[in-house]
Amino acid sequence: MKQDMLLIDCLQYINWNRELFEEAQQSGLNAIHVTIAYWENIRETLENIGTWNRRFIDHGDLIMPVHHAADILEAKRLDKVGIIFGFQNCSPIEDDVKMVEILHQLGVRVMQLTYNNQSPLATGCYEANDSGITRFGREVIKEMNRVGMIIDMSHSAEYSTLQAIELSERPIAVTHANPTFFHVALRNKSDDVLRAIGESQGMIGFSLYPFHLHNGGDCTRDEFCQMIAKTADMIGVERIGIGSDLCQNWGYDTLEWMRSGRWTTKVDHGEGSAKDLVWPQQPSWFQRSSDIGNIADGLRAIGFSESETARIMGQNWLDFFSASFSPMSN
Amino acid sequence: MKQDMLLIDCLQYINWNRELFEEAQQSGLNAIHVTIAYWENIRETLENIGTWNRRFIDHGDLIMPVHHAADILEAKRLDKVGIIFGFQNCSPIEDDVKMVEILHQLGVRVMQLTYNNQSPLATGCYEANDSGITRFGREVIKEMNRVGMIIDMSHSAEYSTLQAIELSERPIAVTHANPTFFHVALRNKSDDVLRAIGESQGMIGFSLYPFHLHNGGDCTRDEFCQMIAKTADMIGVERIGIGSDLCQNWGYDTLEWMRSGRWTTKVDHGEGSAKDLVWPQQPSWFQRSSDIGNIADGLRAIGFSESETARIMGQNWLDFFSASFSPMSN
Repeated sequence: MKQDMLLIDCLQYINWNRELFEEAQQSGLNAIHVTIAYWENIRETLENIGTWNRRFIDHGDLIMPVHHAADILEAKRLDKVGIIFGFQNCSPIEDDVKMVEILHQLGVRVMQLTYNNQSPLATGCYEANDSGITRFGREVIKEMNRVGMIIDMSHSAEYSTLQAIELSERPIAVTHANPTFFHVALRNKSDDVLRAIGESQGMIGFSLYPFHLHNGGDCTRDEFCQMIAKTADMIGVERIGIGSDLCQNWGYDTLEWMRSGRWTTKVDHGEGSAKDLVWPQQPSWFQRSSDIGNIADGLRAIGFSESETARIMGQNWLDFFSASFSPMSN
Repeated sequence: MKQDMLLIDCLQYINWNRELFEEAQQSGLNAIHVTIAYWENIRETLENIGTWNRRFIDHGDLIMPVHHAADILEAKRLDKVGIIFGFQNCSPIEDDVKMVEILHQLGVRVMQLTYNNQSPLATGCYEANDSGITRFGREVIKEMNRVGMIIDMSHSAEYSTLQAIELSERPIAVTHANPTFFHVALRNKSDDVLRAIGESQGMIGFSLYPFHLHNGGDCTRDEFCQMIAKTADMIGVERIGIGSDLCQNWGYDTLEWMRSGRWTTKVDHGEGSAKDLVWPQQPSWFQRSSDIGNIADGLRAIGFSESETARIMGQNWLDFFSASFSPMSN
């Protein structure tokens, strides 16, 4: 059932086609933060942006690019899905701080400083030791702050994340992860990180990726929504949203690419294992874009008010984007 | 005066031309480890290798490539200078472990895991925190061990260096640095690192770069040679050589490139300062390739025997290369 409230999913990674754009549009999603790079270098990233530019022409009746937060309201008015470009890694900027502005000019609004592994900027959540934000990392944070690109620490290690929050002049986001109090995983966030996000006016988007959930794919909607309620109590209902991490329509080879990139001679199984060479099973109540309304219903069911539900389902991200997507004024 | 002993300089960074090749050849240098990448990516590195391939044709009477240690003896026999390709950074492999073998096939025999800054593999000596060898770093070390590429930790931080020594199945090198007991600098090496190099059958090449010297450009030949003697006492005369870090025929813009690459929006002055926008002044007794004999004379003058002098001036590097340049046998 189409929701009337503003709906923003702050992370999806989907092998898009017209049918899936139609489904997203029909489910009432007004904006989706889409991943356009995991390990891609600048050349490969430009190709991915070019592919999206073509999609904006071919499917212009269903989707449109989001460069300013106001574009999301325009997308809602036109009944289209606004598309926000984001990177899950800093690989697209390679070694060049000047690429930050160039990629912002091309529409990129979110970049993770690391994807699981150590990057030239910071430490990823799968590394044994965490040295925090590097010399290059400090330069990139300043530049991202300046041009208006959100620093996303979803796949970063704890000390790096806390340091990014401290060093960044603008609030940062964890677009897709859950609290460790809900499920202990390298990808989930400690109470310390949650509190630092809350105090700095940052945002966390709750993930539906099974490895981030209590009981994995068997996690119930009620458990998921109770986790949201507990986080709201902890850091404020204004600081939370959805970043479903919905992965759809990909073969297993894509998961292998996400996990292993080009950095290892053997396969790295990440959160999975060598015994399970499949995508993990999504919860029954969140299998696809059109299930987004189930979360809103679940929030209402455990007692969130209509305005709180609207905040979590989209308004908080819109407010955060309004403060984040433009160059710093000073 | 041309020396009869084997002469190897395990690090020079020179803007080569025919006159400088002639000078190197006439000074009796049998092999030079030349830097062909600081911040270059794979495409730029291939271009640099291509430039060298052209030089091997155009100046084939003076220089020749070194792919095996035996090529150095052949160079000596032919009265040519053997050229060993090396990287001062891991930027050429980008994010791809497979590039290690490809670059080895093209003649690269030495690679630093970091150049001053954090890299995807390890931490550089200018970073505030040192998290050691990363997940990707472990993969690359295994691959460098396998194909026969020397791990060089000259510009790496201490814990990363000690960990590289521990993780690598083959001895590693610090091609160009001095002990901190001689001069305290982020680029120089502690007693702990020196001892670990010694115990693991590694090598250190002593640097003539003024910022690595006691009293900079005013360092005397005697002081430099006494430092060598003290290190020999500490880790063994078999574990030491020369890696002069001689930089010649470059404008200041090259030094700026070396220091700042593309990672900072402002200039990073590295070991220098904003007040001194020049290359540092070399010691009077080591200004150019043809001064290499001065070091041998200095070693003799403080009491090194002829065979010890020959070890330090080239034989030790030859022995180390003999054990390092070929694929691992097993």
